[in-house]
This record gives sequence, C-alpha cells and structure tokens, in this order.
Amino acid sequence: MTQDNDSKSFFEDFKVGYRFQTASLSVTREMIKRFAAEYDPQAIHLDEEAAKKSMFGELIGSGWQTGALSMRLVAEAKPFGTAPVVGLEVHSMKFVKPMKPGMRLYVTGEIREAWRSRSKPLGFFKVALETHAEGAGPIMTQTWTVVLPTRAGPTAEGKS
Amino acid sequence: MTQDNDSKSFFEDFKVGYRFQTASLSVTREMIKRFAAEYDPQAIHLDEEAAKKSMFGELIGSGWQTGALSMRLVAEAKPFGTAPVVGLEVHSMKFVKPMKPGMRLYVTGEIREAWRSRSKPLGFFKVALETHAEGAGPIMTQTWTVVLPTRAGPTAEGKS
Repeated sequence: MTQDNDSKSFFEDFKVGYRFQTASLSVTREMIKRFAAEYDPQAIHLDEEAAKKSMFGELIGSGWQTGALSMRLVAEAKPFGTAPVVGLEVHSMKFVKPMKPGMRLYVTGEIREAWRSRSKPLGFFKVALETHAEGAGPIMTQTWTVVLPTRAGPTAEGKS
Repeated sequence: MTQDNDSKSFFEDFKVGYRFQTASLSVTREMIKRFAAEYDPQAIHLDEEAAKKSMFGELIGSGWQTGALSMRLVAEAKPFGTAPVVGLEVHSMKFVKPMKPGMRLYVTGEIREAWRSRSKPLGFFKVALETHAEGAGPIMTQTWTVVLPTRAGPTAEGKS
C-alpha cells in the first residue's frame, strides 16, 4: 500500500450498516420552474394556474429534480470519502409526496449490502436513501447500487 | 361525456402494447458540465483531466442528467396526449453505458401493464423505457409507474 493510497478511500473502508446524513437545501419556486423548463416542460411544473387545476392542486417540482437535488446533497456529503459516488442502477425510486416550493430537503443513506467483483478491482454497495423534507417526512425513497475501487484485487468470493 | 372531455386524453385511450418513440437531442460537453455544476458536482462530470484518471477514462454525464433528458424527450413527445406524464415510481433504472458528449439521444417506450384504482378515478400504467444513443444502442433502461385520470369512475376490478 502506497502513501498515496492511505489518503484515498476504497470499498474496504465502508461496511454494511454504515449510515450518513447530508446537509440540507431549500427548494424555491424559481428552481422548480427553471429545471422544468429545461428537463420536464409540463404545466404542473411550470404554470401556477394550470397546476391548480391538476390532480395536485398546486405547482410541484419534477421528480427528476428531486432525484437530481438528492444526488447533489449526497455528492457534497462525500459519504465514500475520496471515492466518487458512481451509481450503476437505481432500484425502486418512489415519489412518496410531491416536492413543493419552500421545502427544505436533506438525504439519509445506509449501506444495506456489499459484494466484490470476481474479475475486477471493484466493490459494490446497495445503499438505501431517503430524501426528507424538514417537517414533512420522506418525499422520495430509492436504493442505489454504487461501485467503488477496491484496495485489494479481485476475489473469488464475490458474487459478480 | 362532455365535448371538453372528447378532446382530452384518459387512461382508457391507451392499452398494453402501445409503443412510442420520441424525437432526439444532442448532448454537449457544456450541457454535461452545467448540469453537473448544479446537481452532481463530481470530478468525473466536471473536470476533463480528473475524468481521464477515473475508471471511465473521460468526461461522462451524470446519470441523473440522462434521466432528466429522457424525461424531457418523453414530455415533449406527449405519449399520453393531453394527460401529463406523472410518474409515481421508477423501477430498476440501469445505467447501461456512460452518457458522453456528442451522443444523440432518443427514447422508446411501451406500456407493459395497466390497472385501475378501486377508490379513485385514476388508472396506472407500467411503462418500459429505453434511452438510446444513435449508433451506440441503449445507454439507460427503466420502468415507470405512471398515473392518468380515467374517463369512467373507479372500478371494483382494479388491483389498487
């Protein structure tokens, strides 16, 4: 192990049960409309009057923006230290409640499974995430499969 | 049924097996960096030199941007006519290949399941989606559960 590697984070540095919580950020009406204009141009996300007549009764944020803001909070929290947060798959992303202007969001996460590649110096975690709105409970839940480099080489014990 | 309803789209207007394909759009280096700066501030999406040293070997787009661009293509295609595309859940979103600058993306979709609410005038579809890069095959696959208003009221035959 080199001195350089000592300061870097690897798969081996994290275990099932490891939990993290991010900082928080506020969602504004302007943020919702700006994201929607570029990525989800539908009246429920852009037009206050049309949104009032929709099944939601008011302007709501795109679920993709909730996901993207959750990514930002997790990326800034650096839960895996120097290893980037690289998702291979998102399992069962549920939009529990609509994201509304004025909400203040934060994300909690927990490693639920861990396994190593049998052929490459890579390890994998299944991470359960909840995006909460302060005072309103979870608004989005999801589980990610993420990949990290391993300090040691591949193993014959891995499941992939 | 009112004349107004005749021009609107409802759950009843679409069936299992219905397929659609969106228009296409090009991904630029500038788009990737601008999205990353706001939603996924990691070196693999922002910094050409750091990305070269990563496991990807070059700058790649955030998976959340691939998802958001796919949403935009679907929203613009209006696969459900006047009914907005409202997702309740995303099942198994897989990042098959990294999204790279210069790729031209389009999305195909197919309704795989349909059911009605037993208590509300709502219907649900499970829709399988593939985001393709022209000349490079699928880069992202996912399945959505979407909700649409029904023309008729609730039914006792629904599964939810």
